[in-house]
Amino acid sequence: MTEIGIGIIGGGYMGKAHAVAMSAVGAVFDTALRPRLEMVCATNLASAEKYRAAYGFARACDDWRTLVDDPRVEAIIIASPQETHRAIAEAAFALNKPVFCEKPLGASLEDSRAMVAAAQGQISMTGFNYIRTPASQFARQLVADGAIGDVIWFRGEHTEDFYADPSLPPTWRAHGDANGCMGDLAPHMVNGALALVGPITSLCAEVETVHKDRPGGAVTNDDQGQFMCRFENGAMGHLFFSRVAHGRKMGYAYEITGTKGAIRFDQEDQNALWLYQMDEPEATRGFRKILTGPAHPDYAPFCQGPGHGTGYQDQIIIEARDFLQAIATRKEVWPTFRDGMLVNQIIAAAMASATTKSWINVADV
Amino acid sequence: MTEIGIGIIGGGYMGKAHAVAMSAVGAVFDTALRPRLEMVCATNLASAEKYRAAYGFARACDDWRTLVDDPRVEAIIIASPQETHRAIAEAAFALNKPVFCEKPLGASLEDSRAMVAAAQGQISMTGFNYIRTPASQFARQLVADGAIGDVIWFRGEHTEDFYADPSLPPTWRAHGDANGCMGDLAPHMVNGALALVGPITSLCAEVETVHKDRPGGAVTNDDQGQFMCRFENGAMGHLFFSRVAHGRKMGYAYEITGTKGAIRFDQEDQNALWLYQMDEPEATRGFRKILTGPAHPDYAPFCQGPGHGTGYQDQIIIEARDFLQAIATRKEVWPTFRDGMLVNQIIAAAMASATTKSWINVADV
Amino acid sequence: MTEIGIGIIGGGYMGKAHAVAMSAVGAVFDTALRPRLEMVCATNLASAEKYRAAYGFARACDDWRTLVDDPRVEAIIIASPQETHRAIAEAAFALNKPVFCEKPLGASLEDSRAMVAAAQGQISMTGFNYIRTPASQFARQLVADGAIGDVIWFRGEHTEDFYADPSLPPTWRAHGDANGCMGDLAPHMVNGALALVGPITSLCAEVETVHKDRPGGAVTNDDQGQFMCRFENGAMGHLFFSRVAHGRKMGYAYEITGTKGAIRFDQEDQNALWLYQMDEPEATRGFRKILTGPAHPDYAPFCQGPGHGTGYQDQIIIEARDFLQAIATRKEVWPTFRDGMLVNQIIAAAMASATTKSWINVADV
Amino acid sequence: MTEIGIGIIGGGYMGKAHAVAMSAVGAVFDTALRPRLEMVCATNLASAEKYRAAYGFARACDDWRTLVDDPRVEAIIIASPQETHRAIAEAAFALNKPVFCEKPLGASLEDSRAMVAAAQGQISMTGFNYIRTPASQFARQLVADGAIGDVIWFRGEHTEDFYADPSLPPTWRAHGDANGCMGDLAPHMVNGALALVGPITSLCAEVETVHKDRPGGAVTNDDQGQFMCRFENGAMGHLFFSRVAHGRKMGYAYEITGTKGAIRFDQEDQNALWLYQMDEPEATRGFRKILTGPAHPDYAPFCQGPGHGTGYQDQIIIEARDFLQAIATRKEVWPTFRDGMLVNQIIAAAMASATTKSWINVADV
Ligand SMILES: NC(=O)C1=CN([C@@H]2O[C@H](COP(=O)(O)OP(=O)(O)OC[C@H]3O[C@@H](n4cnc5c(N)ncnc54)[C@H](O)[C@@H]3O)[C@@H](O)[C@H]2O)C=CC1
Ligand SMILES: NC(=O)C1=CN([C@@H]2O[C@H](COP(=O)(O)OP(=O)(O)OC[C@H]3O[C@@H](n4cnc5c(N)ncnc54)[C@H](O)[C@@H]3O)[C@@H](O)[C@H]2O)C=CC1
Ligand SMILES: NC(=O)C1=CN([C@@H]2O[C@H](COP(=O)(O)OP(=O)(O)OC[C@H]3O[C@@H](n4cnc5c(N)ncnc54)[C@H](O)[C@@H]3O)[C@@H](O)[C@H]2O)C=CC1
Ligand SMILES: NC(=O)C1=CN([C@@H]2O[C@H](COP(=O)(O)OP(=O)(O)OC[C@H]3O[C@@H](n4cnc5c(N)ncnc54)[C@H](O)[C@@H]3O)[C@@H](O)[C@H]2O)C=CC1
Repeated sequence: MTEIGIGIIGGGYMGKAHAVAMSAVGAVFDTALRPRLEMVCATNLASAEKYRAAYGFARACDDWRTLVDDPRVEAIIIASPQETHRAIAEAAFALNKPVFCEKPLGASLEDSRAMVAAAQGQISMTGFNYIRTPASQFARQLVADGAIGDVIWFRGEHTEDFYADPSLPPTWRAHGDANGCMGDLAPHMVNGALALVGPITSLCAEVETVHKDRPGGAVTNDDQGQFMCRFENGAMGHLFFSRVAHGRKMGYAYEITGTKGAIRFDQEDQNALWLYQMDEPEATRGFRKILTGPAHPDYAPFCQGPGHGTGYQDQIIIEARDFLQAIATRKEVWPTFRDGMLVNQIIAAAMASATTKSWINVADV
Repeated sequence: MTEIGIGIIGGGYMGKAHAVAMSAVGAVFDTALRPRLEMVCATNLASAEKYRAAYGFARACDDWRTLVDDPRVEAIIIASPQETHRAIAEAAFALNKPVFCEKPLGASLEDSRAMVAAAQGQISMTGFNYIRTPASQFARQLVADGAIGDVIWFRGEHTEDFYADPSLPPTWRAHGDANGCMGDLAPHMVNGALALVGPITSLCAEVETVHKDRPGGAVTNDDQGQFMCRFENGAMGHLFFSRVAHGRKMGYAYEITGTKGAIRFDQEDQNALWLYQMDEPEATRGFRKILTGPAHPDYAPFCQGPGHGTGYQDQIIIEARDFLQAIATRKEVWPTFRDGMLVNQIIAAAMASATTKSWINVADV
Repeated sequence: MTEIGIGIIGGGYMGKAHAVAMSAVGAVFDTALRPRLEMVCATNLASAEKYRAAYGFARACDDWRTLVDDPRVEAIIIASPQETHRAIAEAAFALNKPVFCEKPLGASLEDSRAMVAAAQGQISMTGFNYIRTPASQFARQLVADGAIGDVIWFRGEHTEDFYADPSLPPTWRAHGDANGCMGDLAPHMVNGALALVGPITSLCAEVETVHKDRPGGAVTNDDQGQFMCRFENGAMGHLFFSRVAHGRKMGYAYEITGTKGAIRFDQEDQNALWLYQMDEPEATRGFRKILTGPAHPDYAPFCQGPGHGTGYQDQIIIEARDFLQAIATRKEVWPTFRDGMLVNQIIAAAMASATTKSWINVADV
Repeated sequence: MTEIGIGIIGGGYMGKAHAVAMSAVGAVFDTALRPRLEMVCATNLASAEKYRAAYGFARACDDWRTLVDDPRVEAIIIASPQETHRAIAEAAFALNKPVFCEKPLGASLEDSRAMVAAAQGQISMTGFNYIRTPASQFARQLVADGAIGDVIWFRGEHTEDFYADPSLPPTWRAHGDANGCMGDLAPHMVNGALALVGPITSLCAEVETVHKDRPGGAVTNDDQGQFMCRFENGAMGHLFFSRVAHGRKMGYAYEITGTKGAIRFDQEDQNALWLYQMDEPEATRGFRKILTGPAHPDYAPFCQGPGHGTGYQDQIIIEARDFLQAIATRKEVWPTFRDGMLVNQIIAAAMASATTKSWINVADV
């Protein structure tokens, strides 16, 4: 058992998730590298100290440079807002330290490209956790294995309703492209689409702010957006994103239709995958509700019983396992910064398309 | 009780459905006019005679003109292929006979416009049955009453899989725009979208033939299509249509998001409507699965018990009631030929948009 | 096409359903015998006349003897309350007229036994419509064909909530065993259990009145009941019945577990049957949601498209087809009066068991 | 932050789950006591050492007495087979060490009673994890708060299919009452019933071995069982248990009907709770699908977003929090050993009832 010192920048929503994941991952996956919670960083020392105590880190700091430079911090997790990602990653790579960065990779496509450049020869990883559920990993495998034939149609959405109530005031979420619906929610499902079906070559988008005025001021970024697209393999697609979709709490959902069958999934019931295959007799044909279990990727380490179910936190534990493994083997694990950047590229293309109201080639962005 | 002589052109899928509906409607709805199955027409006398005997018509013929001209035929139902609709309707209206025409109204927008012109001052009706389930009628009412606030998003689909198997040979369905997926399946959901949310002002579409070569020859019309759109009230929308969507048997489904709540419906479970309203306490908020019952439009005449459920045939009976009522009161019942034409217009706009790969104003078509 | 004169006793809930069914059945199923709505009977002439006009009968009367004796009434449907069933059936059989009787067959086991005796050599049928949906007919077929192996467990329920609100006053439903939950609701699911799994040999029951006092007076019959049972084939079983089950509108639901698989069904989604078969690979095993379609019993005559769905009224049309066919062929169609009586026997056994609070052999009742 | 040394006996299915939970709980819940994985025990040193290394314990041993006696082991988790529970617990309590024991508490009611006696004045807890999901905790709260009125009906099941395939050989699971379906699976749902509705006063049961002969030998304990019961508050109930229920992977499911509404839950979709309340207008009444979120008990520490979902492992983390809190505050947390014993009592009553085939008072056991 070799220890590795982990430094996490940010102790909020995702900082905590990664701290918990790093505490549990060794026992869950019997990893070669065993994380030691070395240092946590936040905007001020008081909150950093609070996170340290709560999550069990050895030390706290309020300047990410301190953390990055610290010799006992051997791997870095960026769980701070999108605008901070690039500078931190560049500094860490300069010291040859592995970096896991929360989505979206950069606050802009430019940032992401710079981050990919900096990551050359380094261990990098981007935080797309939803594609890591046993169900979605299995869906990916089914598609790759041809279980539903050639994909002809993909529909994906990432919809939530945390901003659906028009009477909510404008917070920091209401400003900055990177915090809008396209910047913040779209990356998960764009990554999902790329993982499940392959590269997107062209698209035509619409993006809008539904609630332009909130009590307390204007909203300057987007509430919902959609695009039609073509995948490299010829499949037709559609993606929709919303933070104002009443009733949707974790609407990461997709349907994939192939020439031989179809798959359906909704993250709100994350332990079920629906599979239809045409080669059953007509009378007994139907979508099969498959409950995840030890027969599916990365499930067994959490529980020996099928249908017992994994949850949100477990996705982050799976990411932690992958990051540790990449470090231990010096072989990058999908999705790397490059994969994170490709997502930013699609989103940049969508924003451009929405402005010109026309189809756009992703390669041109 | 006043009798009315009904003539039906076509004795196939829909001809039968209307014959059954006209047999049952009087008893179900206690209608003022009571239909008498007077004459059925088909392409040849043998099949027309077979339909006559099976459905209980008094007479049969193989020329629709005979039927239209017959003095005992007082109202006409067109249940023959789309290319025949216009000529029949024009002839019937010329004799001041009420006409119910199956969807799509005309085989083309031009046909539909001519039919609307001919229908001036006459009783006309178009056969959009799916919007007539108690659930969808209730959804329409909820939206109109503001139960979910202002609509900000509409997603609809009409997807089936009868042509999903690539090894099926090309039949007549494989040729002619009016028989393609856009011509044949799209009208139901386009009508649904218009009914639920209001006029569509602009759209951007994609249409394609997935299985271009089938054993026996080429396919010359479309298998699937989609469009993004804007409604007059500002709502963003997306519609998808497919006849090659494995697993979907009657995928007439929609979700409507408003500023105060949301509605979801899937025709494959046609007796359930899902309603989310934000004004419940957070802990007990959720989509409510409402089973249709006597509290919902047009349900009670079929059954006094909620949750007992109506089916496909019952939709046609509801249409029959409306048609008879329009005749009896000389007041047209929605959807008239004008409403049928508006659907053709959207589809024509979508086909044009798909060709130019650009946004298009519906009014320009 | 041969006509047959139909007389219906009762013009309420079920009288109407059968009138509609008899109007539609010829066109739906192209039956050899074509029903003619000859006479309807109700407790008083005013309502009988109202039913006549509404449903399209030729004549009306207020004494069922008039109807039974009428020479133009060639087949009789009993849709009046349970206490009237026996006398009417006996009178009809005495004239060699075929009788369809609504469930429960008799108001008591004694009545039912007398009715079976009277039905010897006659055409008799009992109105268990729910087992006639395409889904439940298919379930029956699957079990019989061994698709799930030997049955080891059956759980059934018939639950509704029309009396769940304690503030509802006591109507006629509140009195008389035959109108209680066991007398009125249980028969459907008891019949279902017998049809799907086979004879029940012993049982142990509990029955109770939940809301003993309603505004306006006492309730003297039962609100809910349950029993554990053994089937002749060795399977263990449980049945539950309730008219006070909040949220359940048509809770005719069952699950059947066999040595090779399992089936699940809920009438509230009557066009779906769930099938699990163990001989699929572990990773893709799951309950399959099969939507009814032309591949399933008695579906195609209602609609050529799968997933388009049948409803409550269609079940009654299927019964009408069977009754007409039994008459035309002089061969009884399941379920006959004997099958209706077997249901009464189980219910009588349950009531006896509930009184003694002990297991009871059905044969001893 | 005060550390506490944890010793776990057993490193299998549940031993691992508790080791992971103890690794994560501090960071998740910011607990006052912070667990230190001190020692793990297994039947032989090789496997104990393997568990030590995998889960991150400081030391390993092969005699539970060593672990119990070790001064650095300050709290004990029993995750070894049921026959070992009593002796370990008694030894631990003799040293005043807090004990968490996996379900079922004892291998027999006698064992459990002795364990309760030994637990007097000590900190004890029993491992019923399923009742600890945010959904089931919320259900408990709703019932207690009267959200569905007085409970009149409870139906629960715990069904799995790990032994459904008759061709599986008999392992240790095939022998010993405590390893049978009633001994092993029933406790979870019996505990659930008691927690949700209250004490059970009488019951009538059936228990059986479905597959008596398996390749390799006979099965000497039970495969499935059911009982009807009465709760102290008067509610009627039914429970069913099976390890041979094809298709059921984690069939911990219940429905609770009250005088004002109803609740439904199925562990296979553990993040959804279904609530029906009668005080909504008839037209919009229905079961509401509530997705768990921060508004529900013990959810927020796992994730700030509703609908993101918790999983099996998270239940064990919640248990760990409760155990640590009981130790820290010296105030026992439900369910204690007494609650575990009450479950054994119900099961003993059910076994007795099944033998005599009669109703039995639980108090008489
Ligand atoms: N994968 C997923 O499911 C999710 C990913 N995210 C992503 O995680 C990242 C963090 O988001 P949240 O955790 O929601 O934010 P948060 O607001 O909950 O926490 C942000 C943390 O970053 C710290 N921070 C901010 N600026 C800093 C700086 N300059 N130096 C050091 N620390 C700084 C703050 O003190 C705070 O502890 C974002 O990139 C976001 O997009 C967020 C939520 C879910
Ligand atoms: N509302 C709905 O759910 C559906 C509507 N339809 C529509 O109903 C219409 C009929 O379609 P189906 O019933 O599926 O067709 P079908 O092929 O089953 O039957 C067509 C009938 O029309 C008759 N016919 C054809 N040409 C004729 C002519 N020149 N003169 C007289 N009779 C002629 C044929 O003999 C045949 O009886 C179409 O417009 C179709 O789009 C079709 C299926 C479902
Ligand atoms: N299969 C099913 O799904 C259902 C079956 N039923 C059964 O159908 C039968 C009728 O019930 P509903 O239609 O609900 O009752 P209802 O109260 O709606 O109608 C009863 C009808 O019987 C007539 N009637 C009563 N006594 C009569 C008499 N002595 N002579 C002639 N007519 C008489 C009344 O005038 C009335 O028209 C019952 O046996 C009931 O159990 C009822 C509802 C559903
Ligand atoms: N709460 C829940 O969801 C579940 C609870 N359980 C309960 O957990 C307990 C353990 O079951 P599993 O983990 O499935 O068993 P397992 O067979 O996976 O592991 C048992 C462990 O106990 C050790 N062990 C056995 N006898 C021992 C002894 N005399 N001294 C020290 N160590 C000994 C074994 O070496 C092994 O590490 C049982 O009481 C079982 O009923 C089991 C599964 C699920």
